[in-house]
Amino acid sequence: MNQQVAAKPFHRILLTGAAGGLGKILREKLKDWTDILRVSDLADLGAAQEGEEVVQCDLADKAAVMDLVKDVELILHFGGISVEASFEDIMRANIQGTYNIYEAAHHHKVRRVIFASSNHTIGFYKTTDFIDATMPPRPDGIYGVSKCFGESLSRYYYDRVGIETVCVRIGSAFPAPANRRMLTTYLSYDDLVELLRCAAFTPRVGYTIVFGVSDNREKWWSNHAASHLGYEPKDSSDKFAHLFPDTGRYPDADDVGSTYQGGGFILSGPQYKP
Amino acid sequence: MNQQVAAKPFHRILLTGAAGGLGKILREKLKDWTDILRVSDLADLGAAQEGEEVVQCDLADKAAVMDLVKDVELILHFGGISVEASFEDIMRANIQGTYNIYEAAHHHKVRRVIFASSNHTIGFYKTTDFIDATMPPRPDGIYGVSKCFGESLSRYYYDRVGIETVCVRIGSAFPAPANRRMLTTYLSYDDLVELLRCAAFTPRVGYTIVFGVSDNREKWWSNHAASHLGYEPKDSSDKFAHLFPDTGRYPDADDVGSTYQGGGFILSGPQYKP
Amino acid sequence: MNQQVAAKPFHRILLTGAAGGLGKILREKLKDWTDILRVSDLADLGAAQEGEEVVQCDLADKAAVMDLVKDVELILHFGGISVEASFEDIMRANIQGTYNIYEAAHHHKVRRVIFASSNHTIGFYKTTDFIDATMPPRPDGIYGVSKCFGESLSRYYYDRVGIETVCVRIGSAFPAPANRRMLTTYLSYDDLVELLRCAAFTPRVGYTIVFGVSDNREKWWSNHAASHLGYEPKDSSDKFAHLFPDTGRYPDADDVGSTYQGGGFILSGPQYKP
Amino acid sequence: MNQQVAAKPFHRILLTGAAGGLGKILREKLKDWTDILRVSDLADLGAAQEGEEVVQCDLADKAAVMDLVKDVELILHFGGISVEASFEDIMRANIQGTYNIYEAAHHHKVRRVIFASSNHTIGFYKTTDFIDATMPPRPDGIYGVSKCFGESLSRYYYDRVGIETVCVRIGSAFPAPANRRMLTTYLSYDDLVELLRCAAFTPRVGYTIVFGVSDNREKWWSNHAASHLGYEPKDSSDKFAHLFPDTGRYPDADDVGSTYQGGGFILSGPQYKP
Amino acid sequence: MNQQVAAKPFHRILLTGAAGGLGKILREKLKDWTDILRVSDLADLGAAQEGEEVVQCDLADKAAVMDLVKDVELILHFGGISVEASFEDIMRANIQGTYNIYEAAHHHKVRRVIFASSNHTIGFYKTTDFIDATMPPRPDGIYGVSKCFGESLSRYYYDRVGIETVCVRIGSAFPAPANRRMLTTYLSYDDLVELLRCAAFTPRVGYTIVFGVSDNREKWWSNHAASHLGYEPKDSSDKFAHLFPDTGRYPDADDVGSTYQGGGFILSGPQYKP
Amino acid sequence: MNQQVAAKPFHRILLTGAAGGLGKILREKLKDWTDILRVSDLADLGAAQEGEEVVQCDLADKAAVMDLVKDVELILHFGGISVEASFEDIMRANIQGTYNIYEAAHHHKVRRVIFASSNHTIGFYKTTDFIDATMPPRPDGIYGVSKCFGESLSRYYYDRVGIETVCVRIGSAFPAPANRRMLTTYLSYDDLVELLRCAAFTPRVGYTIVFGVSDNREKWWSNHAASHLGYEPKDSSDKFAHLFPDTGRYPDADDVGSTYQGGGFILSGPQYKP
Repeated sequence: MNQQVAAKPFHRILLTGAAGGLGKILREKLKDWTDILRVSDLADLGAAQEGEEVVQCDLADKAAVMDLVKDVELILHFGGISVEASFEDIMRANIQGTYNIYEAAHHHKVRRVIFASSNHTIGFYKTTDFIDATMPPRPDGIYGVSKCFGESLSRYYYDRVGIETVCVRIGSAFPAPANRRMLTTYLSYDDLVELLRCAAFTPRVGYTIVFGVSDNREKWWSNHAASHLGYEPKDSSDKFAHLFPDTGRYPDADDVGSTYQGGGFILSGPQYKP
Repeated sequence: MNQQVAAKPFHRILLTGAAGGLGKILREKLKDWTDILRVSDLADLGAAQEGEEVVQCDLADKAAVMDLVKDVELILHFGGISVEASFEDIMRANIQGTYNIYEAAHHHKVRRVIFASSNHTIGFYKTTDFIDATMPPRPDGIYGVSKCFGESLSRYYYDRVGIETVCVRIGSAFPAPANRRMLTTYLSYDDLVELLRCAAFTPRVGYTIVFGVSDNREKWWSNHAASHLGYEPKDSSDKFAHLFPDTGRYPDADDVGSTYQGGGFILSGPQYKP
Repeated sequence: MNQQVAAKPFHRILLTGAAGGLGKILREKLKDWTDILRVSDLADLGAAQEGEEVVQCDLADKAAVMDLVKDVELILHFGGISVEASFEDIMRANIQGTYNIYEAAHHHKVRRVIFASSNHTIGFYKTTDFIDATMPPRPDGIYGVSKCFGESLSRYYYDRVGIETVCVRIGSAFPAPANRRMLTTYLSYDDLVELLRCAAFTPRVGYTIVFGVSDNREKWWSNHAASHLGYEPKDSSDKFAHLFPDTGRYPDADDVGSTYQGGGFILSGPQYKP
Repeated sequence: MNQQVAAKPFHRILLTGAAGGLGKILREKLKDWTDILRVSDLADLGAAQEGEEVVQCDLADKAAVMDLVKDVELILHFGGISVEASFEDIMRANIQGTYNIYEAAHHHKVRRVIFASSNHTIGFYKTTDFIDATMPPRPDGIYGVSKCFGESLSRYYYDRVGIETVCVRIGSAFPAPANRRMLTTYLSYDDLVELLRCAAFTPRVGYTIVFGVSDNREKWWSNHAASHLGYEPKDSSDKFAHLFPDTGRYPDADDVGSTYQGGGFILSGPQYKP
Repeated sequence: MNQQVAAKPFHRILLTGAAGGLGKILREKLKDWTDILRVSDLADLGAAQEGEEVVQCDLADKAAVMDLVKDVELILHFGGISVEASFEDIMRANIQGTYNIYEAAHHHKVRRVIFASSNHTIGFYKTTDFIDATMPPRPDGIYGVSKCFGESLSRYYYDRVGIETVCVRIGSAFPAPANRRMLTTYLSYDDLVELLRCAAFTPRVGYTIVFGVSDNREKWWSNHAASHLGYEPKDSSDKFAHLFPDTGRYPDADDVGSTYQGGGFILSGPQYKP
Repeated sequence: MNQQVAAKPFHRILLTGAAGGLGKILREKLKDWTDILRVSDLADLGAAQEGEEVVQCDLADKAAVMDLVKDVELILHFGGISVEASFEDIMRANIQGTYNIYEAAHHHKVRRVIFASSNHTIGFYKTTDFIDATMPPRPDGIYGVSKCFGESLSRYYYDRVGIETVCVRIGSAFPAPANRRMLTTYLSYDDLVELLRCAAFTPRVGYTIVFGVSDNREKWWSNHAASHLGYEPKDSSDKFAHLFPDTGRYPDADDVGSTYQGGGFILSGPQYKP
């Protein structure tokens, strides 16, 4: 049995945010990669399944994170807040939390992190723009700003101490697109897992920003700067296109949802309540 | 029956140049999109078919064009002269005519125009160049210059009053390539219609220049700046490649047809007669 | 006397639009370059001075222009309409007129034209943009569109028959800036003449677009693509800065005059009267 | 006397960090611009001088900052920590603090902020690189990461609610360069004030990143993307070059101080103590 | 039978280096293109087969090369040394040899050469870089430097006397990838032949640099600058990916083989023996 | 006296090609930089002056070069052939010779080389182009190709073993311009020395290509990629402009001297004799 375990490529991977929407998916999918999948969240994760270690952990707690990262070879950092919330909550979870992850990674000599960034780092580009990872960020909310922070911080840890990071700017990773915009930003779960596989197993990734998106027809994002990952999406939102049929009813010129890549999310910032 | 009609995405689309080569094709193909297809041309268009309105109209006649555009939601502007001709004729049809279309569109609050531009706007690039829509125009004739005018004018109407335009730089839209050059510039009728569909139904297009070309093997033109349209050509000129078999007989260094993207068209300007 | 004449570098230069604002200035300044300065305008030009030929000419009259250009070595094409006007007037003067000039130049084997283009070819760029001659035009009016036409047309005549053109995108060529915007767009008369000198005497100019602007502090335009002209402005609008003193009263976010490079001109189009 | 006061362009400017190295300089220099200069710091600022309001304020205190910004027309945000320190201290002062400033600016309808960013946002570029403001940040420490956060945050507030920001990536603003590296990064106090003047009084700045550096001979940074500010440095480090005489003693290949633009600062992170 | 021969597109093609690894493959594959395939090498090539001419030739022998090229329409220049060797040997074979080929081509009015360049012209780019043919060379050995020489020399012969060249930067053209790096650089024999077919039969190629690589998942090289060749690889290294299974054992940060595109080849220079 | 000597920044600099046109100038100018200036040439150099070592040396003689470079801290490699000559002569002097220099530099741990490259590496760009050091070389002769070789080789030695090189693409370094083209390419002797000073004393240069040109009015070359050198030319060809007065006599369209940056040099290749 030990030999069988030894055949997996990683001995221990840490997945933060394992109780979240994507975390639950990944908790199932990553087990073939690793002898032990350590899953953590602030929320309850249930009992450990076979091949798992379960750690309830507040990412803002530096000491707890230091323990969490011990003996880990790879971190998939999906923890934190993934919607607009109060600045203080986002700062605690996404800024302090991500710093804690990197400090612990540095302390424990983890060599690679896959960071769940977001398309909301660039949500204020227009839907008629075609952008790539070298263009300046244009976040569309405090959440997006916090992801920009994570991208800056991980750039620093790579330049300074050599921790490799793949920042995955995740599009819309749901079972199906929920509106017409998501026909462009859709990322199927299978493609997400495939992209993470590329990010985890490419021998050298340095510091790479990649857009997490399926092979949808309409495109806003170019992954040419991440070609070395070899990510080839297999899915497309086309099979959902019938849900949002063609129509000649153009939105108004100031319709946020169709004007900016970030869509309606742009309007969700709590600071703009009347 | 009324309900059936109501199910079409547009109520009324205007197609100018409907008696031309492409106009005849489109007159058949667009009917699923619109309750009423208003077709116009200077030439005779025959009787109106079901779901059609037929208007004989000289595009250089400002008042006539003002009437022509009334109650229209979308214009496919394929009218005018599409070959080299005298400057005065081209100015009348393509310059005055296109201005009349945009003025009428502005007056009648039409929100989008699809403008039949041409690869002859960039025909003086070399066949070893790979270009995109952001590069400066290099027209290869007076016809091409008039299309550059249409592209400038429509840019202005978008910036000034918000009329969206997709400029389609049409390659060689014929049943089949007629020479080796057209293996690179070929646009199948099906791909043309698909591209127009993308141009008509994408919720926001702003001001977009797109090359109208099938998925041919040799490529001169990149559509990365129009990725948001989601245009995916399905056809290729490869099935016609056997008509122009491989040969080691390189053309002379000053052979215009193989040197410039515009091909032999470059030589057709009337002003160069001896 | 004949020897003295022979010492001038050109035998005959044609200046169109010689009765216009800049034309009057140039009529004085160009005489050192040429034995004979042929000046033309639709308006009255007074009697011919020494070394001058005066031709009253409607540029839209093809035959008249053909005569006008005869025996000329260099054309400074400053004729036409230089403000917003009706489309038909602009088309006649600037589109038909410029075509006539190039056809005549081709017929009479004139080897170079200096074309008075305008910053209004790019007036819809923002005042926070820094642009160069390779970026796509964004005209801010029908006048600007007509200048884009001239730039396309002259590109064609260079590629097709080798007539060299320098398109000078003239900024604000007045005795002094008339508003704060013109601190950025100001072109002194001396710098204008110096730029024209560079355009006329550089041995090879091919097809060059250059911004006609003095060495003002605030800059929107880069002339790196015209470095071969060796144009070095000597003047600056700084000496007029006191006329528009510093103030903390920021214009409104939708203030056209401070938002777009074209300034208030953008609002002057006749088609937008209520 | 009141009239004299009324002649100043601003009524009230807020300067945060007024007790810091640059704050002290600016406290003297800005008085001509404003009737009232409100100065704040966590540290003691002494008594208010004529034309001043003195507010001791912890920028991490949201309510206090809300009061601080009241009735202000322009903010020069120089507050926070400007060296490497513990992450928690930097997060509190520079991340929470800058957020508080922008929230208060939004609440009080302040229309422009000048943000003291730093060359340490890009300190991991090499000394043989020539960079501009559109290139991705490469911070060289936690301090630099916090400045990247400020740049992302202010980008968001401009895109979302229209607050204009000029991010000044300050070089080495000291009386004189302290080492050879600073010959390249030196920013004289006079040039700093001139740059701030440009940032404060240009009618429209949108979102602009500008490098704060004098006209030194060796250059790493291009300000072409901020040309609209009209910033023209008058000083150069050349007069200090004799302090660091030419020598043929090349540093070792891994000498951080000469390899990276951030210089020895790169080594100052507290997390790298043995 | 003669007529059948006459139907081949070329009458005589020269293949140098025909005894080398790729030369042997090509000797078989090219026969359909040409009535006569002249094969040459320094090494023994055996007896001439049908449709062949065999010439043993030292490429450094100018007179011999002059004879070799006589009556040839197209040259596939695969001769010379293709591994690290002493500088003198490489200079003789690859520098003098390639010069001799081009001089002879010029003398005998050969209109096109296909030059076997190498990925080792750019081997010092990192494996996280995505590069194209317009970026500066970064050779990874003396062999690579000699191929850079060939690329410069052929550029000159095109600009000066019009000999067209396609420089094929061959990746790893072997029956199968021999290590994980070659999953990215793999070029199948079929794709090599297809690329050479494109290079030989495209009517105009001017001076083109193209990367010789199959459609592998991980990509370092963009062929957009050679789109006019119409090269579409059919193979992928994916079918060999199981030979180099996924593993979490990241190489050390200074592992040359995974850091640079040139892989271990970088270490093979003879001049670095202890 | 020994102390005085010790105050010079270098102990020993090697100047190759010291008997050449520029070598003679530099032999005088460099003495302030170094205790000992070792000068070498194939030609006679006369007796050693104070502070000199004179070595007659054939750069193609590997053993001789190995001795030549011993105990040297910096090499200014101006040796070899600087005009069109037979390929074999150029290969011997410039290709074998430059290789010998770098091998010896590597052996003797020399840390920096200043390589006299040439504008003839890019002489086939047009006189209307504005180019920089990142653009692909377009040599205009065999001499230019040999300089491209030196640039590739030195790139390799920097990437592989860390020898820094500044490639100086020297324009026209003569007492005065000899024709109109040289008004653009002129490099005064003082500016040459200043550029070499920058190249020698900047603490880190990595691998830098810089154009050696004075601050002439017409410009073809941008040195933005070498901004870190801090080179500021003081001279201009303007004071010689009167030697080549303005004229309206445009050269023919195919006049090589005015069409290409390399000027008439392009025609000097020996292989093109009839």
